[in-house]
Amino acid sequence: MGEEDALRFLADRFKATQKEVLMGIGDDSAVLKLRDKTCLVASTDTLVEGVHFRAETQTPRQLGKKAVCVAVSDIGAMGAVPRYLLCSLGCRGAGAGEFIEEFSRGVEDGCREFDVSLVGGNLSESQTIFVNMTALGEVVGDDMVLRSGAAEGDGIYVTGTLGDSALGLRILSSDPGIDGGEIAVSRHIEPTPRLAVGRMVAERGIATSMIDISDGLFCDLEKLTSERGLGAEVNLGSLPLSRCFLSLSARFCEDVYLLAVSGGEDYELLFTSPEDKRIAVDEVSRLCGVAISKIGSVTGGRGVRFFDEGGEEVFYDTGGFEHFC
Amino acid sequence: MGEEDALRFLADRFKATQKEVLMGIGDDSAVLKLRDKTCLVASTDTLVEGVHFRAETQTPRQLGKKAVCVAVSDIGAMGAVPRYLLCSLGCRGAGAGEFIEEFSRGVEDGCREFDVSLVGGNLSESQTIFVNMTALGEVVGDDMVLRSGAAEGDGIYVTGTLGDSALGLRILSSDPGIDGGEIAVSRHIEPTPRLAVGRMVAERGIATSMIDISDGLFCDLEKLTSERGLGAEVNLGSLPLSRCFLSLSARFCEDVYLLAVSGGEDYELLFTSPEDKRIAVDEVSRLCGVAISKIGSVTGGRGVRFFDEGGEEVFYDTGGFEHFC
Repeated sequence: MGEEDALRFLADRFKATQKEVLMGIGDDSAVLKLRDKTCLVASTDTLVEGVHFRAETQTPRQLGKKAVCVAVSDIGAMGAVPRYLLCSLGCRGAGAGEFIEEFSRGVEDGCREFDVSLVGGNLSESQTIFVNMTALGEVVGDDMVLRSGAAEGDGIYVTGTLGDSALGLRILSSDPGIDGGEIAVSRHIEPTPRLAVGRMVAERGIATSMIDISDGLFCDLEKLTSERGLGAEVNLGSLPLSRCFLSLSARFCEDVYLLAVSGGEDYELLFTSPEDKRIAVDEVSRLCGVAISKIGSVTGGRGVRFFDEGGEEVFYDTGGFEHFC
Repeated sequence: MGEEDALRFLADRFKATQKEVLMGIGDDSAVLKLRDKTCLVASTDTLVEGVHFRAETQTPRQLGKKAVCVAVSDIGAMGAVPRYLLCSLGCRGAGAGEFIEEFSRGVEDGCREFDVSLVGGNLSESQTIFVNMTALGEVVGDDMVLRSGAAEGDGIYVTGTLGDSALGLRILSSDPGIDGGEIAVSRHIEPTPRLAVGRMVAERGIATSMIDISDGLFCDLEKLTSERGLGAEVNLGSLPLSRCFLSLSARFCEDVYLLAVSGGEDYELLFTSPEDKRIAVDEVSRLCGVAISKIGSVTGGRGVRFFDEGGEEVFYDTGGFEHFC
């Protein structure tokens, strides 16, 4: 399948049907009509072979779906609604046709699940497989949540459970057949962007700051607090951990809390909220059917600090959290 | 330089100053306010090491600039105005800091020249260097030019000159020091997106279809005609060729017309326009200070056909034009 054939195949598969898509795949650019009084929200993310995934442990279809999940998660973390995707795929020439077909099936799965349309794309030959996904979304007026609004005394909340994805990656890399590991693996392969929760905490003015956890709780909490001159205290005993994580993580690392705190790729929402909004947070959790746990508080002093169940501070070597260069 | 440091460096360098950028680099997503009654135009493009460029012949700064040129060219080819960029860079960990710094200088050069703002980005480690650039632009209402509007009898026009970029690539690959080759090389390294021409032919309703030439005249003319059930006749003698191209191309290929017709990466605009708009086309050329040449006509029968100055048809093996897989 040549590039033109592949693009035609994709254009057919992703034919846009909404009236807001004045031009989808098949021209120099997509042309899109935004809803009245909305702002455009735009974000771009990349998955690279050997860094973010390995071709042996992730099928092209899973890769396509994951790229969509990761992309819409960034839009959701602003409290916005994802609407459109532009996808660039780099893959090796040999077997590219089959790869592209399977990959696009995964993108299609994601588009259907999260109600977004692929409106643009690009295919390149590349020795290293990569996917770049740009997500475009909409948010009404000021109805969004930035990373910058946390205040001293705010509670720190997280959706779902932490560490499953990091555990899943370890299972995939060393013991893919292990009993009971399926949930962790599937959370790594197919993370769940928390779009409904993000939207609702934004609409209801509950969150003062918000981010989706991609680099791990520690790194992403730093972005909400330390980088803004604030700090955080986290109770390790309050971290939401899945049954799968509790039963298997000790086999793959010495300190299971460290894995939950630094593992990354959870794609759960991490947000701060004033104490008096506690009931409103619980209401969002109930309405969305997603657990939301309070794991600590924002402090005036800089730095993210961890405390065990006995109230003793636990020190981590934070240098190990940096994953680039 | 770690990823966070690099992102901070980029956030500082690309601090958005326009009031339409409600949030630029530094949050989960960029948040942008579009002008009233405009549609969003979005496009994404990738440059891959070993496929679109070689690290030995293109500096990181040149690469950054070129990625901007290529991205805004796609927006210009709709007759739209490019406004924002999101850039994903994949580069090897070793030396990444310096690479990123130089690369971002090139992006900055491009942003300044074409009056666009980098509002989002992403850095990844990758064994193969790649750049993905998503461009967002605006167009008022229906004031745009698609690929699909050509009609039988329309003239076929092209801006600037053809083949310089392809010649430049050959010079870079085999004989970079050759006398007089600088223009061709610079056209390959730093193509000129024809934004003003694109905008003006759209505003004045001159063009029935338009595309920017990235895959070569033949391929891109096929997209405007054959793919829509039409054909094209091109007079090889009318192809606009630069002095540099005329004096050097014969040393690098047997058939200089073939190079001009199939070389690609010209980033000139190719458009169709009814015969009665000929004077209006000349007016655009004059106002923008860019040569616009009529090279042929749209025909009813399918296929792109070439004729030499004597009126004899010239046959090319079109299979060689496909560059993927």
